[in-house]
This record gives sequence, structure tokens and C-alpha cells, in this order.
Amino acid sequence: MRELEERIVAEGRNLGNGILKVDSFVNHQVDAVLMNSCGQEFAELFRRLQPSKVLTAEISGIAPAVATGYHLGVPVVYARKSRPITMPNDVLLTLSQSHTKGGTVELVVSPEYLRPSERILIIDDFLASGQTILGLARLTSAGGATLVGIGTLIEKQFEGGRKALEHLGVPVESLACIRSMDGEDIKIANE
Amino acid sequence: MRELEERIVAEGRNLGNGILKVDSFVNHQVDAVLMNSCGQEFAELFRRLQPSKVLTAEISGIAPAVATGYHLGVPVVYARKSRPITMPNDVLLTLSQSHTKGGTVELVVSPEYLRPSERILIIDDFLASGQTILGLARLTSAGGATLVGIGTLIEKQFEGGRKALEHLGVPVESLACIRSMDGEDIKIANE
Repeated sequence: MRELEERIVAEGRNLGNGILKVDSFVNHQVDAVLMNSCGQEFAELFRRLQPSKVLTAEISGIAPAVATGYHLGVPVVYARKSRPITMPNDVLLTLSQSHTKGGTVELVVSPEYLRPSERILIIDDFLASGQTILGLARLTSAGGATLVGIGTLIEKQFEGGRKALEHLGVPVESLACIRSMDGEDIKIANE
Repeated sequence: MRELEERIVAEGRNLGNGILKVDSFVNHQVDAVLMNSCGQEFAELFRRLQPSKVLTAEISGIAPAVATGYHLGVPVVYARKSRPITMPNDVLLTLSQSHTKGGTVELVVSPEYLRPSERILIIDDFLASGQTILGLARLTSAGGATLVGIGTLIEKQFEGGRKALEHLGVPVESLACIRSMDGEDIKIANE
């Protein structure tokens, strides 16, 4: 998606170790109008698969996921990284390697909102190593629901996430793909 | 806002100790269409004050804040509860009492995104004791920006938050007000 690619080139910063800072429009400050356009794009890409729910992980997945849910007219569930007091005692929980934080994080979903009848579209901000998305796919299976597709705003192609998701057998769509990040240079894949 | 009030009455659950569970449409599962309507309502309520940015706190403030930012056509900043590696070393940080979690949480904003020229509209999911919103107001002052208004989805009138915000001298709007929560009974204020 050209608008997103242009923002990455203009405002993204390579902090080294594969970390791309997009805090001015995705991760800390959110461009709400751009997020809405991204949600519309995801809705167009995945509508034919008839998702009944969007699943994401807190925190930075929430904005693109809610925009997608709005354009598809379906609810959004975000996996929590700890069980809040409002959640039942029995939950769906999986462990996931955190790329940016190091170590392992929990992903927790209440089984109230992930049922066998659901057709799940996973939306997240980044596709890097794919570990968070694999965790969300495990939660989908644990709830007995059907995964129908995966969409991410920004794919870092050089981290191999797409390969890691291949066995899930569903379409994976990224709105902007980064081929490489060397020094100050952030290379968009389809340039 | 009638639609939100009706959902609270139909799906909200009183977990005791003043905790209202609205996990099926606000806090864990998000009704993206309802959130969009709430954002539109906030935009109409606050547009005349010409906010240049919406400020909220992760996590559950993000969905209503991004919807509001979309309808106002302004960016959204969400305060983080810990400093991510993408943030500069010098940050705006304040401590806030957490109502639902107990103890103190940090609210952290990068000074890159909260500048003296900004006119800040604070949006959050709940107005309970008002502590999170007071923290966001302190961050606004610390950045030298101007607070112009405060909007929350659900106000628990019996927790005194509105009184605590009075000295800020800005309009405070809640889309649904809960007068009392006794047993199973959740009483909406304007019924």
C-alpha cells in the first residue's frame, strides 16, 4: 500500500538489530486516518474468506485490527499479555517469544470470545519472525476456531516470518514489505 | 449515548468492588462498529475546541481514542506503561494509581509527540476515580501542551472522578454514566 510504504520511507528509523521505529504513525503515535485506510485495505483483501472475528495481540495490533473489524463489520478480540481480573479463571493461554522485548510473553484469550464457530482473521502491526502470530494461531486452534487469514501492516522479509507461517495454509498479506534494513537505508520490496 | 447504554445494561456485569466487566464490547472483545460511533460522537462533542491530538493510555483507551482521532482527522498518542526500546532515553513519565490492578503504574510519553503547540483531547474507556486521566493531564502539562477536553466512554459516577478532574477547568464528557452498581443491578444515570 503506497501510502504506508511512503510513510515508512519518510519517517521510519532503523535502530539496529532489525528494529524499525515507526513510533510516529503506528506504535506510539497512531495516524488514525492512515490506520482507517489500512483497515479498509485488509477488509478488501480478506472479505471473500468471510471472517467472523478479527484476532490481534495487545498493544500495537489493536489500532489496525479495530479498523479492519470496522470495515468488515465484525468484532475484534485482542489477546492480553496478562490475565485481567475481569477474565474467567479458565483461559486460553500460550507462550510466545517476544522479538522486541526479549524473553517469553503470555498471550491470553478468554474462551468466551473464541468459539468453534468462529472464522478468525489475525491482524498485527509487524510480521518479523512470526512468533506472535504463531501464538495467536495456536490460541485459535485451542478455541476450536478456524483460521482463515493473516494480515500485517509491515513485513520484515529478512526475518523469515512468512516461511514460519507457511504450514498454517492460509493467505498472508502485508501492506508494506521491507526487503532490507542496512544503516539508514530502509528498502521497500516492490520499489 | 443510547447504543452504548443499552449494551452496558445488556452485557455489562458487576464483578463487585466497583468493577464493571464490559469485556464483550470494550475491554477484551471490541465492538468495532460501536467504537466508531463513539469516536464520531466524541468528535462532534469536542470539534469546536479544535484539538490537534488525542491522548490516551494503553490498553483499553486505544480503540475509542483512534476512532475519535479518525473522525477529528488528528493523530492519537497512547501513553505506554513501560518505556519501549524504540523510545528516546528522555521521556515524560508520571505515576498513576491503578484502580483495577492495584498499586502504581507508570504512564510514559515520548516528548517527540507532545509538544507545546498541541491542543490535547484526552479520551479513555472509563472515568472511575480519575487517576489515569489526571496522570495524562500531568503529562500534557509536562510537555507544555494545552489540555482542551476529556471524554470517556463510561463514567462510574459513584467513584468521584468528575470531582477530581474539576480543577483542570476543561469540559468532561462521558457517553454513558452509571449511577450505581448494586448486586446484579447496573443503573444508568439518565434512565
